[in-house]
Amino acid sequence: MGSSVNRKILLASRPKGIPDESNFTVIKESIPEIKEGEVLIRTIYLSVDPYMRGRMSNAISYAKPYELGEPFLGGVVGRVVDSKNSRFQVGDYIEGRLEWADYNVSDGKMLRKVNPELAPVSTALHVLGMPGLTAYFGLLYIGEPKDGETVVVSGASGAVGMLVGQLAKLKGCRVVGIAGTDEKCSYITEELGFDAAVNYKTTENLETALKTACPDGVDVYFDNVGGEVSDSILSLINFQARIIICGQISQYNLENPSMGPRVGGQLLKNSAMMKGFIVSDYEEHNDEGLAKLSQWLREGKIQYRENVVIGFENTINAFLGLFRGDNIGKQLVKLTEE
Amino acid sequence: MGSSVNRKILLASRPKGIPDESNFTVIKESIPEIKEGEVLIRTIYLSVDPYMRGRMSNAISYAKPYELGEPFLGGVVGRVVDSKNSRFQVGDYIEGRLEWADYNVSDGKMLRKVNPELAPVSTALHVLGMPGLTAYFGLLYIGEPKDGETVVVSGASGAVGMLVGQLAKLKGCRVVGIAGTDEKCSYITEELGFDAAVNYKTTENLETALKTACPDGVDVYFDNVGGEVSDSILSLINFQARIIICGQISQYNLENPSMGPRVGGQLLKNSAMMKGFIVSDYEEHNDEGLAKLSQWLREGKIQYRENVVIGFENTINAFLGLFRGDNIGKQLVKLTEE
Repeated sequence: MGSSVNRKILLASRPKGIPDESNFTVIKESIPEIKEGEVLIRTIYLSVDPYMRGRMSNAISYAKPYELGEPFLGGVVGRVVDSKNSRFQVGDYIEGRLEWADYNVSDGKMLRKVNPELAPVSTALHVLGMPGLTAYFGLLYIGEPKDGETVVVSGASGAVGMLVGQLAKLKGCRVVGIAGTDEKCSYITEELGFDAAVNYKTTENLETALKTACPDGVDVYFDNVGGEVSDSILSLINFQARIIICGQISQYNLENPSMGPRVGGQLLKNSAMMKGFIVSDYEEHNDEGLAKLSQWLREGKIQYRENVVIGFENTINAFLGLFRGDNIGKQLVKLTEE
Repeated sequence: MGSSVNRKILLASRPKGIPDESNFTVIKESIPEIKEGEVLIRTIYLSVDPYMRGRMSNAISYAKPYELGEPFLGGVVGRVVDSKNSRFQVGDYIEGRLEWADYNVSDGKMLRKVNPELAPVSTALHVLGMPGLTAYFGLLYIGEPKDGETVVVSGASGAVGMLVGQLAKLKGCRVVGIAGTDEKCSYITEELGFDAAVNYKTTENLETALKTACPDGVDVYFDNVGGEVSDSILSLINFQARIIICGQISQYNLENPSMGPRVGGQLLKNSAMMKGFIVSDYEEHNDEGLAKLSQWLREGKIQYRENVVIGFENTINAFLGLFRGDNIGKQLVKLTEE
């Protein structure tokens, strides 16, 4: 199974504005040999995520950018196909931050074993992985939603947003999602149990629509998008509201910082908080988060949807699709059968 | 001592933009009689504060606005001149939120006794009162400054700002103040021990000047002013920076919310927090805060300056002077001798 060469995606140039195919190069190499202590991993699933846009440039980024001519790195679920490391056997499933490639070599230190009997292995890239922990820490550690409060989430049908809403429902909140197609809005209300959804692209006046959807105001806003969508929330926040800045996908492709209404006055008037974070800020709580998420998944309290494209050659387009709003649920690329 | 009539300042009209004399009416009444359980208070000091601008309109306000035709309310230090309340004796000094008037009647419930032997009674309106607690809670409870961190404060020579800087010095921080005259800048560096000061009115490029003053970036920004001054801090914040929104004096007189660079990207990239507050959010800790502030004042670790104008008739002008940047230190109006 699998190809006999190792394909790999490199950063060819830093995008100005919206990235396109020209920013990427695909190279072919021979499948690498492993040394003592290493494992060879065959990629099953690649994760494409909005935050990667930040690493393509220096504009908005929490971490070291990708280097020109170097491979993209991201979440990968794969299988060990060769091992000179006593912790790993051939056939083990793993998840790690690895190159966008058919094969990766690793010393195993940053790899997490995935048990295929607990849940489909792809969930290690969403509910039981980085997006799941992002939703968990952001909502519960920063947002601290209380029973009866109103939680609004933007990017509501994305990998993080769909979990945020479901976790907020588990906490007894009224949950309103903001998304960009009627199909996404139906998905979150009809399948995921959100109380209301607002299509920001077709609504005439977003602020009015949100006001209707949030008759008691907004206590927690989980922001994946930024820009005008988030501006429209500000006049609706309640006393001691918490705004969690998880992503700003509407802003990643802008060449200059965008202008909007200054937020200081609303935060002051409402003793409100706005906080950015990255999932690794809370990594000491990873085990707790994964245990809780696994439990809720097992008990059927969390639903998810994957948007899987097949074939390594479709990776770049799947990534670019994130900025077109193509995906409902977690966007994955599947390279090979499990 | 004192006048035989009771002068009182009422809100005549809500200002559009910068308030002026026409927004106020001064009336004269006879000195009120007290009933059982009440006290009559002769005002010694009136406090004029920037936050009162918010209560003149509905624009930016954390609390119920002043009503048209009703008296202004604010911090008053006075002396009991008549009492039918067993808790208070004639001659007692008190501090309370009372009318801008020569005399006030109170049921005593919200009055705080002031001990004139501990410190000058006027300090109950700043270091040992609302501005002191505002600096204390905002900096220490929200900002949580750590030894060696850099703290920037805007409105640095005002009643709150000058305390914030001194408290940050006590915590071992590098402290940079932003103020609007060279005299204010000299005051905070030469008399209060701030490490650096930036005059935002005369500096050619505020961001560059702040960068020079903060070679290790900004960990805590205590914001009293908002607007462009605060915009210029954003590119300098460090990972997990805390921005405390205490006031937005540059914005209070604007008729529409002002536009500026959106903050989401910088907060996200730095896992940074921005939080508004009002001193009453922390009122359960008032005793602790006042005890600490009293101790530091006694030990000479806190300096202060008052800008005292004499005469009730100068109250309105003293208030309007806050928005002209007239004051260094706490602006007070003194009506009568202690």
